Amino acid sequence: MSVNITKIGVLTSGGDSPGMNAAIRAVVRTCAFHNIECTGIYRGYQGMIEGDFEIMGPRSVNNIINKGGTILKSARSKEFMTPEGRKKAHENLVAAGIDALVVIGGNGSFTGGLLFNKEYGFPVIGIPGTIDNDIYGTSFTLGYDTALNTVVEVIDKIRDTASSHNRLFFVEVMGRDAGHIALNAGIGAGAEEILIPEEDMGLDRLVDSLKKSKASGKSSSIVVIAEGDRIGKSAFELKDYFDQNMPEYDVRVSILGHMQRGGAPSCFDRVLASRLGVKAVETLLEGNSNYMVGLLKDEVVLTPLEQAVKGKSQIDQELIRVSDIVSI
Amino acid sequence: MSVNITKIGVLTSGGDSPGMNAAIRAVVRTCAFHNIECTGIYRGYQGMIEGDFEIMGPRSVNNIINKGGTILKSARSKEFMTPEGRKKAHENLVAAGIDALVVIGGNGSFTGGLLFNKEYGFPVIGIPGTIDNDIYGTSFTLGYDTALNTVVEVIDKIRDTASSHNRLFFVEVMGRDAGHIALNAGIGAGAEEILIPEEDMGLDRLVDSLKKSKASGKSSSIVVIAEGDRIGKSAFELKDYFDQNMPEYDVRVSILGHMQRGGAPSCFDRVLASRLGVKAVETLLEGNSNYMVGLLKDEVVLTPLEQAVKGKSQIDQELIRVSDIVSI
Amino acid sequence: MSVNITKIGVLTSGGDSPGMNAAIRAVVRTCAFHNIECTGIYRGYQGMIEGDFEIMGPRSVNNIINKGGTILKSARSKEFMTPEGRKKAHENLVAAGIDALVVIGGNGSFTGGLLFNKEYGFPVIGIPGTIDNDIYGTSFTLGYDTALNTVVEVIDKIRDTASSHNRLFFVEVMGRDAGHIALNAGIGAGAEEILIPEEDMGLDRLVDSLKKSKASGKSSSIVVIAEGDRIGKSAFELKDYFDQNMPEYDVRVSILGHMQRGGAPSCFDRVLASRLGVKAVETLLEGNSNYMVGLLKDEVVLTPLEQAVKGKSQIDQELIRVSDIVSI
Amino acid sequence: MSVNITKIGVLTSGGDSPGMNAAIRAVVRTCAFHNIECTGIYRGYQGMIEGDFEIMGPRSVNNIINKGGTILKSARSKEFMTPEGRKKAHENLVAAGIDALVVIGGNGSFTGGLLFNKEYGFPVIGIPGTIDNDIYGTSFTLGYDTALNTVVEVIDKIRDTASSHNRLFFVEVMGRDAGHIALNAGIGAGAEEILIPEEDMGLDRLVDSLKKSKASGKSSSIVVIAEGDRIGKSAFELKDYFDQNMPEYDVRVSILGHMQRGGAPSCFDRVLASRLGVKAVETLLEGNSNYMVGLLKDEVVLTPLEQAVKGKSQIDQELIRVSDIVSI
Repeated sequence: MSVNITKIGVLTSGGDSPGMNAAIRAVVRTCAFHNIECTGIYRGYQGMIEGDFEIMGPRSVNNIINKGGTILKSARSKEFMTPEGRKKAHENLVAAGIDALVVIGGNGSFTGGLLFNKEYGFPVIGIPGTIDNDIYGTSFTLGYDTALNTVVEVIDKIRDTASSHNRLFFVEVMGRDAGHIALNAGIGAGAEEILIPEEDMGLDRLVDSLKKSKASGKSSSIVVIAEGDRIGKSAFELKDYFDQNMPEYDVRVSILGHMQRGGAPSCFDRVLASRLGVKAVETLLEGNSNYMVGLLKDEVVLTPLEQAVKGKSQIDQELIRVSDIVSI
Repeated sequence: MSVNITKIGVLTSGGDSPGMNAAIRAVVRTCAFHNIECTGIYRGYQGMIEGDFEIMGPRSVNNIINKGGTILKSARSKEFMTPEGRKKAHENLVAAGIDALVVIGGNGSFTGGLLFNKEYGFPVIGIPGTIDNDIYGTSFTLGYDTALNTVVEVIDKIRDTASSHNRLFFVEVMGRDAGHIALNAGIGAGAEEILIPEEDMGLDRLVDSLKKSKASGKSSSIVVIAEGDRIGKSAFELKDYFDQNMPEYDVRVSILGHMQRGGAPSCFDRVLASRLGVKAVETLLEGNSNYMVGLLKDEVVLTPLEQAVKGKSQIDQELIRVSDIVSI
Repeated sequence: MSVNITKIGVLTSGGDSPGMNAAIRAVVRTCAFHNIECTGIYRGYQGMIEGDFEIMGPRSVNNIINKGGTILKSARSKEFMTPEGRKKAHENLVAAGIDALVVIGGNGSFTGGLLFNKEYGFPVIGIPGTIDNDIYGTSFTLGYDTALNTVVEVIDKIRDTASSHNRLFFVEVMGRDAGHIALNAGIGAGAEEILIPEEDMGLDRLVDSLKKSKASGKSSSIVVIAEGDRIGKSAFELKDYFDQNMPEYDVRVSILGHMQRGGAPSCFDRVLASRLGVKAVETLLEGNSNYMVGLLKDEVVLTPLEQAVKGKSQIDQELIRVSDIVSI
Repeated sequence: MSVNITKIGVLTSGGDSPGMNAAIRAVVRTCAFHNIECTGIYRGYQGMIEGDFEIMGPRSVNNIINKGGTILKSARSKEFMTPEGRKKAHENLVAAGIDALVVIGGNGSFTGGLLFNKEYGFPVIGIPGTIDNDIYGTSFTLGYDTALNTVVEVIDKIRDTASSHNRLFFVEVMGRDAGHIALNAGIGAGAEEILIPEEDMGLDRLVDSLKKSKASGKSSSIVVIAEGDRIGKSAFELKDYFDQNMPEYDVRVSILGHMQRGGAPSCFDRVLASRLGVKAVETLLEGNSNYMVGLLKDEVVLTPLEQAVKGKSQIDQELIRVSDIVSI
């Protein structure tokens, strides 16, 4: 309540995602709106340790709402994992007069913020920024919607080639522990099958399904695979398996990779980032902290940061069923 | 429960929107999944009157999930507004063995379906397809998300030119009665001001705001205007006003127009269409009808069609506040 | 030959176009490559008069190759049309040690540069930057290829809607005096008819052609109109004519407007800008001036600036024939 | 001269490329324009052997100008490499009354056509369709311009991530024997280095260049690598080398793969396809054959097919120099 916030620091940490700049912009301008100073911290926690700060006003964030990446840059910091690192960071914040933090990033970034809060009582608010959508307490993370559009646009292109040649494509998308991108982009791209970490379809069922798909008259097939799928084979290993055991398929592999993290954010991500950025700052100004802001059931809500870090974002089982139906 | 559905007709009606094809695909394939026949009805209610039908199987809807427009075409039908027209339509449906309807469209289309249901007891399910997002009972209509992305991409381009020349642009977007597109795309595009039908900002406040914006060091300004805004002036009239009264502004106008209705649907719209299409058919198969399927609070839900037609989709007041904050 | 160039000034002038930033980048870096200083002049000739200069090194132009607009901004300068204005401009250049100019812009910008050269013997090289492609001495101006892609992408979207509703669309594109955009984008978009300033098709032939097109079984028609077409009617006037005289057509109008000037440049425009920027600087360093650099018959060539200004870029008659054939 | 052509067959062969559909459309419609019948041959030479034909009129090619891939599908045919295969193919053509062929494809496809012509005196015209731009006798092959845009758009996204994390990216693009895509897209994407098959830069020079690039203050580096580059290491092997020998770099790899073949063609490719398609048919109707149509020095020209097959498309050495200059 009564912590009198006068200067807020904002940083981006972990893998970058589209919408981070829009969130930075919202944080900076909400501070200005409430006549609070705002300081940009470069390269995440590493920049906090090195004192890589810059005071930012509304004009510092002109024309960035539509830019991918993060103007504050991001880095992973081993030093911040040590008490000495965090001590240095805290000293720098105090020296700069910063009395609250907005951390834009994923689970690892929030864990760092939580630790920092526990040791120094420093008020922290988290904004979920990651394309993987694997954070508890929000239906959408920043960058997720943009990544889905990037993936379906690329698979639309691959489909052109696949159907011109009656081919089978294995397309690997991001998602080491979470199948959100694979499942949603797979449905969006009209994939014949989708392999995700949360479900072990098994190689036999995959082969059966593709045979059925071919028999039904489909001229090409796209299988979308999350990096961390449970079938236990990478896209290239699957290709090898098919090349040896089912030579009647002309198999190709495409690993989408890092392009999924970049690009101009979708309108959805820009608006989400604006809403979460405003809420993050105003939550601090109301004297609350250690929350993550998120969008749940169409509303901006707060989730205790500890819960956000420990919780597990679930895959929508009904969506798996939808996927099975619409791909027949 | 016990209405034994054996053949479902599907049509698109009213203005087309991206995602309609994905919804048709989902309806057709869900029918096939449940071993029900599906008939495509061309050109909406007009095609119903003319018996312009085609039986559709899973392969009829190959490679359409990513296409804008509607393969079933759309039309406005004056004849369906008459009892004679609806009688003919009903006879055609009966003759074709169709015993339930899925109507993809907006409020006008639902009103037609409702009327038809009242007169003939014909089971109808509505899927909200319109870019305007002005339908009660769903947080998102099909095509709305795609239209938002189209608008922000275009305004991003206009911004290039605006900021190269320090200009003021009035950009008119769709939304005769609803400011959803203007408000959300305006925030997404970083617009300095947004004029919507739901709020009368007044010309004076607009002028004040733009002066403040200029004084704050912004090199260009974008004002997004919904077609039906309450300030009572079209984009061109606003330009005239500024040309005469504030010649220090170099004003340009852009009316985005029909491009907002087209284009490959976003991933969000494709997934939404798939979910709603599955639910529409399964609701009929469960013996229920006269509902609209929609997405509310992250869940697919049913709203009585009558309520959907009468209800009013509200603008999010909090979003207006967010817009004011992030545009400073 | 022997003019010893030590510092080159670069400016953008007239309407902005995609690729201008890529050209600025190439000019700046070519200077650095040859150990010459480079000064950016803001807001074209107006900034020259006001001394709005900034020394630029290779890092000043990082990450701009893909940005629309111009980081140097552009403006039209009435003052530069006066001898006094040019005198001031010259004094500023001399004071800043700038001894040669690269002017990126269109015909008007080149005329200014030529005048300046005549009065002060100042070495000038022009780079053709305008989306209109209406400059003599080059087959492609910077931004033209990007504008073509923007237009066809938009018309692709409009086509979705047009063919869903069996409509006739009049789409107005840029080109007050030149039909290059209309003709090429019209062919690219599969337009049924194309109206350009260079050819007067006549209203009767247009009507005939559209009737024939409808009779041939086409479900929709797109007519692309250059702003300055000779038929003497704007898109809206054409709509009025059709509404009154041919009510069987459901006519819609779309004016594409300023979005055509913006957007990330195409690869072609980026490479072209890079080639022309290098050539512009090296031409000056070789002691030559008063040329425009351009791409003709696949080669970078020099055209005397005077000739570039006076010459007229011709429309390709063969292309008009191709358009007639492929639109049947 | 006097070979009286009455029915032209058209096929696509080899790897598909954007613009093939636009070329098919132009061939079909030019036939209709000249009152000649046109037959589509599915799956290239394999479909010729199997008699997989379909008569096509102007309406058969509606709304395909903007579609990637090829509606006629493509396939590689081992059988056509045998005299027996070609005999069957010839019999099918004769039976169908087809008396001339338009072959859309690359070098392999032309070689097949040439062989066929030698054995049966069958008139053949080639249209260069491949994204690699590696065909003698044309400055641009169909799909090349589109592929360049696809590559720069993807690298723009990767750049977002690269510069947010100060990373080094190796991006592999298509081009087993030709560096056109790598060189042009590399310049367009602002790559720090470009490795192509035509030039052996050597690992040492690459390392030197990247060190210099870092020292100059660049925050990230992109190296574009053609599949078939001469440095003799794949992108992954290069990453291994850097991981071991230069751990100060945070290296990532991205293999763009098949997406480069798909997507809506650029306006340039659509117009080029239209021009070449018209010319191909009209060349046959004028009694000429065994030519490839191409665009050289801004004009549509004919190159003897034999020469097109044997000739080698050269990389532009000047462009390599431009690349070195603008990447400093």
